[in-house]
Amino acid sequence: MTNSVAQQGPIAATGKRDRLVASAVALIHQQGVQDTSLADIAQTAEVPLGNVYYYFKTKDDLVAAAIDAHAQELRATLGSLRGRTPAARLKAFVQMVCSNSELAARYGCPIGTLCSELDKRDDDLAGRGVQLMELPIDWAQEQFRAMGRRDARELATALVASYQGISLLTNTFRDPELMRREARRLERWIDGLAREQ
Amino acid sequence: MTNSVAQQGPIAATGKRDRLVASAVALIHQQGVQDTSLADIAQTAEVPLGNVYYYFKTKDDLVAAAIDAHAQELRATLGSLRGRTPAARLKAFVQMVCSNSELAARYGCPIGTLCSELDKRDDDLAGRGVQLMELPIDWAQEQFRAMGRRDARELATALVASYQGISLLTNTFRDPELMRREARRLERWIDGLAREQ
Repeated sequence: MTNSVAQQGPIAATGKRDRLVASAVALIHQQGVQDTSLADIAQTAEVPLGNVYYYFKTKDDLVAAAIDAHAQELRATLGSLRGRTPAARLKAFVQMVCSNSELAARYGCPIGTLCSELDKRDDDLAGRGVQLMELPIDWAQEQFRAMGRRDARELATALVASYQGISLLTNTFRDPELMRREARRLERWIDGLAREQ
Repeated sequence: MTNSVAQQGPIAATGKRDRLVASAVALIHQQGVQDTSLADIAQTAEVPLGNVYYYFKTKDDLVAAAIDAHAQELRATLGSLRGRTPAARLKAFVQMVCSNSELAARYGCPIGTLCSELDKRDDDLAGRGVQLMELPIDWAQEQFRAMGRRDARELATALVASYQGISLLTNTFRDPELMRREARRLERWIDGLAREQ
């Protein structure tokens, strides 16, 4: 799934808190939560380590803020998907995901790999991945429902599962073409469902 | 994906090396590679920590052995899937995956979550997930080809992506029903492809 914060090279000249969150999002995507230290994040954000504690008491607080940033970005991205019909909007979503195929080959889906890591934990952060997966499923469900599908929730879950799974395969094989091919298949699948209307 | 080693409770009374590998497979599934120490594995395997180094010089050697154990188990499982037709064998595969829905809700797919973690590394272990994903894709491709499908590789990749993605969602939502519902959808999809023959 896209997250433009994760794709920024140099951290934009914003406030210190925003720079810390943007750096956390990018480093967690590249290295995972466990391999990312507060010191790494502070350095990438160009914020003195001593200042970090003013904004975030613990690394977990910063991880929670990174999750919130993903949720905010996701809401904005889903809200910006245009299309005359629900099928066109669903295909715009597939295209949007697919536009990150090179990044997925390198680091996987920023949201999927984060959830996979959080899912192994049994602390407060463990359940925080739910909102990140619910957002695209709820959005896709609305589109399938607008297509008159009674199985809208099931189709939405299948769509999100497909791109999460292909993100993992694309990452494991380091092959962006896998994602592009699956995107074309999903577009044909959406067209097929639209024709059944 | 199934791996009976990961589902065993007490480690069977086998040789020390086998017990260490079985413990590594189970603990890596439950906690991830990074949170699993050689001491944890030795304790679960009931092997004195000092003895571990006789079999494995480093933790990475033991992780590599766990990957090999997964590959061996996968080959055996895929080889054991029976069915009169390729479609029946593919549905047996879906059923086999789905039979682990409770375990997936708790810890995710043992192979998918391991690959997701290894994919973030840039060492020798980083590429070792490839064989674990290739095995089921190659197997499913053979079945789709036997159904006369020219797009056998694409369909096989889509099938493996679907169950990897639904494993992640099942784990994130802690809801085995998600996997059972997707399994029924995949079975209908396979039946539909078989009717197109």
